[in-house]
Amino acid sequence: MADRSDSSCVHKVGFPPRRSLATDFTRGLKETFFADDPLRPYKDQPRSKQLALGLRFLFPALEWGRDYNLSRLKGDIVAGLTIASLCIPQDIGYAKLANMDPQYGLYSSFVPPLIYAAMGSSRDIAIGPVAVVSLLLGALLQTEFDPVTQKEEYRRLAFTATFFAGVTQAALGFVRLGFLIDFLSHAAIVGFMGGAAITIALQQLKGFLGIKKFTKNTDVVSVMRSVWGSVEHGWNWQTMLIGSAFLAFLLAAKYIGKKKQQQLFWVPAIAPLISVILATFSVYITRADKHGVQIVKKIEKGINPSSVDHIRFAGSFAAKGFRIGVVAGMVALTEAAAIGRTFAAMKDYQLDGDKEMVALGTMNMLGSMTSCYVTTGSFSRSAVNYMAGCETTVSNVVMSLVVMLTLLVLTPLFEYTPNAILSSIIISAVLALIDYEAAHLIWKVDRFDFMACMGAFFGVVFTSVEIGLLVAVSISLAKILLQVTRPRTALLGNLPGTMIYRNVEQYPEAIRVPGVLVVRVDSAIYFSNSNDVKERILRWLRDEEEQQKANDLPRVDFLIIDMSPVTDVDTSGIHALKELHKSLQNREVQLGIANPGAVVVEKLRLAEFIELIGQEKLFLTVGEAVIGCAPKVSDDV
Amino acid sequence: MADRSDSSCVHKVGFPPRRSLATDFTRGLKETFFADDPLRPYKDQPRSKQLALGLRFLFPALEWGRDYNLSRLKGDIVAGLTIASLCIPQDIGYAKLANMDPQYGLYSSFVPPLIYAAMGSSRDIAIGPVAVVSLLLGALLQTEFDPVTQKEEYRRLAFTATFFAGVTQAALGFVRLGFLIDFLSHAAIVGFMGGAAITIALQQLKGFLGIKKFTKNTDVVSVMRSVWGSVEHGWNWQTMLIGSAFLAFLLAAKYIGKKKQQQLFWVPAIAPLISVILATFSVYITRADKHGVQIVKKIEKGINPSSVDHIRFAGSFAAKGFRIGVVAGMVALTEAAAIGRTFAAMKDYQLDGDKEMVALGTMNMLGSMTSCYVTTGSFSRSAVNYMAGCETTVSNVVMSLVVMLTLLVLTPLFEYTPNAILSSIIISAVLALIDYEAAHLIWKVDRFDFMACMGAFFGVVFTSVEIGLLVAVSISLAKILLQVTRPRTALLGNLPGTMIYRNVEQYPEAIRVPGVLVVRVDSAIYFSNSNDVKERILRWLRDEEEQQKANDLPRVDFLIIDMSPVTDVDTSGIHALKELHKSLQNREVQLGIANPGAVVVEKLRLAEFIELIGQEKLFLTVGEAVIGCAPKVSDDV
Repeated sequence: MADRSDSSCVHKVGFPPRRSLATDFTRGLKETFFADDPLRPYKDQPRSKQLALGLRFLFPALEWGRDYNLSRLKGDIVAGLTIASLCIPQDIGYAKLANMDPQYGLYSSFVPPLIYAAMGSSRDIAIGPVAVVSLLLGALLQTEFDPVTQKEEYRRLAFTATFFAGVTQAALGFVRLGFLIDFLSHAAIVGFMGGAAITIALQQLKGFLGIKKFTKNTDVVSVMRSVWGSVEHGWNWQTMLIGSAFLAFLLAAKYIGKKKQQQLFWVPAIAPLISVILATFSVYITRADKHGVQIVKKIEKGINPSSVDHIRFAGSFAAKGFRIGVVAGMVALTEAAAIGRTFAAMKDYQLDGDKEMVALGTMNMLGSMTSCYVTTGSFSRSAVNYMAGCETTVSNVVMSLVVMLTLLVLTPLFEYTPNAILSSIIISAVLALIDYEAAHLIWKVDRFDFMACMGAFFGVVFTSVEIGLLVAVSISLAKILLQVTRPRTALLGNLPGTMIYRNVEQYPEAIRVPGVLVVRVDSAIYFSNSNDVKERILRWLRDEEEQQKANDLPRVDFLIIDMSPVTDVDTSGIHALKELHKSLQNREVQLGIANPGAVVVEKLRLAEFIELIGQEKLFLTVGEAVIGCAPKVSDDV
Repeated sequence: MADRSDSSCVHKVGFPPRRSLATDFTRGLKETFFADDPLRPYKDQPRSKQLALGLRFLFPALEWGRDYNLSRLKGDIVAGLTIASLCIPQDIGYAKLANMDPQYGLYSSFVPPLIYAAMGSSRDIAIGPVAVVSLLLGALLQTEFDPVTQKEEYRRLAFTATFFAGVTQAALGFVRLGFLIDFLSHAAIVGFMGGAAITIALQQLKGFLGIKKFTKNTDVVSVMRSVWGSVEHGWNWQTMLIGSAFLAFLLAAKYIGKKKQQQLFWVPAIAPLISVILATFSVYITRADKHGVQIVKKIEKGINPSSVDHIRFAGSFAAKGFRIGVVAGMVALTEAAAIGRTFAAMKDYQLDGDKEMVALGTMNMLGSMTSCYVTTGSFSRSAVNYMAGCETTVSNVVMSLVVMLTLLVLTPLFEYTPNAILSSIIISAVLALIDYEAAHLIWKVDRFDFMACMGAFFGVVFTSVEIGLLVAVSISLAKILLQVTRPRTALLGNLPGTMIYRNVEQYPEAIRVPGVLVVRVDSAIYFSNSNDVKERILRWLRDEEEQQKANDLPRVDFLIIDMSPVTDVDTSGIHALKELHKSLQNREVQLGIANPGAVVVEKLRLAEFIELIGQEKLFLTVGEAVIGCAPKVSDDV
């Protein structure tokens, strides 16, 4: 060894202080469910103060409301008006994705944002119906009831599902199981969202081309068959003209907005409303609806009616609603969480994920009682909200008030709005969900992840949203399971002139110590991989012995396992280590353990594995293990 | 720093050589499916040699058969006779657990062991029907058909299920997915086996007490209600006398065998057969069957009839069989794999798990065509086989031949065998499955694991085997998922007089460096935990800043993440790191990365994270990172 200054003082491996069962258990539970210790601010406070803190915790508006001022209000009003102009046409279109009448989209942009404004803690999220959840909800609901012939039942199930979506969301947050949504991997989400965007865009061909008979399936094959099958008689040129002209306008506005994001963010934000006004006006004066251009016809006037009597809380109807609600609620949560985290990181404020879920859940529960269907944070509108300079959730209140005014006064004006313009708006909105850049990054970084991404994408595009979602979740889980089954191991060598040992593949300059095999296990040793770890280590040893025979090298007398990356071990893992030790004894190879962590060393001690191999075979570092195990060998180096 | 000898030469972090997509992919596949590289011996061999090697691979008997000799044969004959004497009474009893006629148990100990002897590679396993699989198969089958009134359909389904159990086993081995059985954790298996043993023992109260009307449920509540409900008229004192006398005899034999394992292992092995002979003889001369002692009555004479025409390969009947077969086949595999591994480790020979599965699968497929139901390795008989000095699978052949002779000649002798003695034999056999010691070790080592163990145990005892199995699998999977969701992190400090940094909780003597926060992440950073890792690190930082304000310590200027245990990172993880970097920038804290592994550093480079933080912020060790990040700070220490 070059650097012997350390070798004289061989350090002891630390044993953590013994903890009682209760402490151990509480710690485990706390780390799992209360990683952020929500009760910390309540400690050592008088009762009244605790109540005030509790209320402020539940209603963050009370917190920031105290130092709200005029300049903030100005920012919120500008942002609120901007997202209102964007959300009104989107709401009408998204309601159609969920097979609901257009006013339900507007209803859903009135009540939920108000509730979120009081309870939510993200400052940038814009609440309302979103494309993917609307499509998913519509797809799930229409497997139960036909939205045209069984309109009443369909709507009742929609509100029941929305109620249970809210219950699911609030419950997950309340019992602090919010981390469950993390089981949908980023790659799977990118694929799923992209696939859903394509599916939604394809669905819009109906309105865009003015086709009357259209398939109910959402897969690309059925849709394209529907489109080409109606090419002779079904397409309406006036509709296509309106649709494509305004789509070009919207895309141009988007392009401008992207070019000068700082100053012109409002151009793509108000372009949809301008399109709607222009298109409606031109249809009205040309009476194009007489020439086959389909129009919205009627939007119910007035604000949200109560829908409490529509919801079923028990029975088989409720069971259906529950099933659909859980799925739609989880997907909605995933979207809201992604938005919340992104903007929290950009403005560097903290977001309690579980609390957010309670806010979103309450919002959907109350929403379901006021004729709203599942709402969540919208990617596109939240980005606009942020760009427009929103300061607090007041921008959602402003948006909500504008929607209320629209419902009370302006709905008759939408009578002549052509469906084609709504389709154009939806197409231009969902194109943003196709995240080429993320897909490209995934491709560069991890090919297996990319396959997961494509699996979810093609699952949605070629079968249905539900299947695509199932594929996405399955692939995500399979990835975790594969990861813990096949751990990586590495042979270590000495970096010349140091006591440091590193993977010889990563550091080609690292030199293997003759007669000593240093193996690093790169994973917790659990039941799922314990046997594999044992076999893999023995294989390294056999390979080494073969080479050694072929090249007449010194015999391997010592096997050192670097346990630095081994974060945990369970009884199966200890069992495998004991079997390994037995095999090594049969071959007269000595086993040394370097740098076991606190949890591992404690468990090895409890299972009497340390007694078995001998306390002196535990080392603080690989370098010391090499010296300690094989002083003669290390002198030769 | 005390030891500055290293600090002058700051080492570079190694980047692994770039690999092409194909190489990357092949490596990944190979590590997952061909961890042991089965094709290695075939390399550079002529065609004829490859064929011979292939045959020897498929039939290991050809391999060891060449140096088989008389002394080995002697060992195998002794072992074979011993396990035959143990298996005959067990077979008859286990067949009843599966609701089959007694001869089917004997059939199942004739054909399958012969096939395994040619194809299997474990030298110590004893093949035949086993208690848990018999119980599970019986429980699953009787949900479909009643074993008494629909005897014919029941038997047909049994053979169909056995066939598909074999197909499942062989297929898993063939496509090298054998690692799937590792997803049942050791703790869950201990609990499941213990629960099944209790359930089986409780079931034996029927025969043991001579009760005629007995519940079909297997949970402890139903069984005890059945037992106490029949206390007035249902119990037969002659039966109880026989049962308890011989149970005492069997337990005594077991105790003796355990005391002097080396010399007297054969005592408990032949005790069951002796009991059967004595009990049968005493019933025959006293004609106790006239006084309500239930007897076996009739065992069909002759060897296995063909049952090919009983198996359905398609249709809904086959679907039922497939479902049952998959479950029974997987449980059987788990048991065989555990036995195989245990004895392979004890005698230090290698076992190819996937090849074993192909052998077991073929054995069950052929077995299903010759009136055998699902067989696997038996814990108790394999242990006896090992103790009796078996050398190869020839001991299974010897056992099989003895069973054949029994079927051809001796079955009429079992006519007067009382059911009570079979119950006693089963009770004494399954008690060995209750592994107190393993449960105690699990309790000591890991409380969460112990809960899993108890969950499976009570699931089996209080509901049913299927539910218990489901609980066991769910808990195992939940453990993996929890493990990857809540990673451990640790604060590191400097061990005085070294460049080594260790967890300050494990090593109380480690000293934190003022102004520098060193955090170690103890897990791969994946989508399932990336957000959590980020939040946790920021929380360490906030805690530190609070303390620092309170105690007037120097400001934290540097955050160093020790990535030694981080075995992998995915796009979500990189995304979280980028968000972390942004948050740190807002707080004017610099980020350093110490010792990233080959895979991690490669992915960070591809995702341009290294460009983002700067190449100079990557360090080989934490020690160098502290010096490199904060030369001023480290000088002060």
